[in-house]
Amino acid sequence: MRTALDCIPCFARQALEAARFVSDEPAVHERVLRDVMHRVAEMDLRKSPPVVAKHIHAELRELTGVADPYREIKDRFNRLALRMLGDLERQVAKAEDPLAMAVRLAIAGNVIDLGVDGTLSEDDIRRAIDNTLHEPFVGEIEALRDAIARAERIVVLLDNVGEIVFDRLLIEQLPLDRVTAAVRGRPILNDALLADAETAGITGLVPVIDNGSDVPGTLLSDCSDAFRQAFDDADLIIAKGQGNFETLSDHPANIWFLFKAKCPVIAGHVGLPVGTHICRPGIPSDALRRT
Amino acid sequence: MRTALDCIPCFARQALEAARFVSDEPAVHERVLRDVMHRVAEMDLRKSPPVVAKHIHAELRELTGVADPYREIKDRFNRLALRMLGDLERQVAKAEDPLAMAVRLAIAGNVIDLGVDGTLSEDDIRRAIDNTLHEPFVGEIEALRDAIARAERIVVLLDNVGEIVFDRLLIEQLPLDRVTAAVRGRPILNDALLADAETAGITGLVPVIDNGSDVPGTLLSDCSDAFRQAFDDADLIIAKGQGNFETLSDHPANIWFLFKAKCPVIAGHVGLPVGTHICRPGIPSDALRRT
Repeated sequence: MRTALDCIPCFARQALEAARFVSDEPAVHERVLRDVMHRVAEMDLRKSPPVVAKHIHAELRELTGVADPYREIKDRFNRLALRMLGDLERQVAKAEDPLAMAVRLAIAGNVIDLGVDGTLSEDDIRRAIDNTLHEPFVGEIEALRDAIARAERIVVLLDNVGEIVFDRLLIEQLPLDRVTAAVRGRPILNDALLADAETAGITGLVPVIDNGSDVPGTLLSDCSDAFRQAFDDADLIIAKGQGNFETLSDHPANIWFLFKAKCPVIAGHVGLPVGTHICRPGIPSDALRRT
Repeated sequence: MRTALDCIPCFARQALEAARFVSDEPAVHERVLRDVMHRVAEMDLRKSPPVVAKHIHAELRELTGVADPYREIKDRFNRLALRMLGDLERQVAKAEDPLAMAVRLAIAGNVIDLGVDGTLSEDDIRRAIDNTLHEPFVGEIEALRDAIARAERIVVLLDNVGEIVFDRLLIEQLPLDRVTAAVRGRPILNDALLADAETAGITGLVPVIDNGSDVPGTLLSDCSDAFRQAFDDADLIIAKGQGNFETLSDHPANIWFLFKAKCPVIAGHVGLPVGTHICRPGIPSDALRRT
């Protein structure tokens, strides 16, 4: 999807939050913010928002000399999610529809996004998971179940750390011998890398590849050839998170998007209220219904 | 006061809100936003936020060819406030301390600020006035009363339309023969002009001058010689609104600021929570107390 004008104030806020997260130096904060304003003033709005985020964070890494500034908080989010895993696995196991429950929990995990809210706390995450089943949900579980049953090669595009522990619940419901999972190729925000997929126990379940890119989404032109081959070979893509939706929503492949609509621009794009938990195919479907 | 880095995302939001308020053309919205981003990327942060607002709105007027794009809503806000005036005058008259009540109501009127919230509705304004006495208030009414009693030449710097009807309640409590009121010199946002002071009935009470400037505050270097003379000759300035505080907070004159702290930057600057109604002298005073 294109970048909306409303994304621009948000880029400025994100750049400042990220700069403060990464550095204590006001001079660094100011330089990052000025640089981002220059970029944004010239940016091609046909590009998707994650492309701008990539540039913001590349600038931050260059100015601070820190290659993975979110590493510490990522480890904390992974540990938090892993502590919750046992309870959540039991919740899925005893659910009337384990796939539906796993989808709901995986979408709930999408709250762990420091791009949307740089001040997110562990309490916020716990509350989000506890409230999962009370959140508005719009999705087609039966159609997703059919798509999974028919698919021969499934690629699951993972999103953020912590969140990927919840995604493991979903992967456990898939036919494991037909699944490959994918993470980002290089550090960007709190997006998951190969090490995080190991920590979450996903590498023990299915092959995990990285996409070679540091866009917080899936910009195919920025991804490695190996990843693109896997993407092209798949007959079903399950894409987690807002960033993957922003970068792939116009792609003609058979993609199912599972995410929480976390901002008014995305919510407006899909025609649903902010906060809605969404499970929908990329190709507009009249079958979307509230459950 | 200086512009904070946190003001920068807010400038982007304000520019977009203002562009949408003034024009239905997405191309105009985009051009204004890009232009503002360029300016902001280069801006001297030692300047105060209203100086940026001046440039945003000059650009808007140029692009749209509309000299006073807020004229219609300004008239609506004035009419709304005038309909409330009779009740409010009675409220002041029967108050135990009419000056204190007039100060509270004048500060409550400061909610009418389209720079802070471009989507402000008439209901929002009514609610704000109704809740005035329940809002946190930090001020030195006795010290202000003394300053008024001692002053020989008082200049009241008015702020926004609608709000100036509430300011009239305050002016009515002052020694009218020693008071001059001042408005902005040219259209900017919903700031009050001479015509608004007439509509609010202030020109019938005291001399009203304009400051010759279109900064939504009081940037003395941008004001007319006549206004600066009146400012210099005054021994007490009563400055309404956040914009006047932002532009004059460092000035050594005997200035009393009456405003609502409407954003985290201002609130942080004065060390009080967002939403506090403030009545304080410009020179830091240990006598500030909660009432």
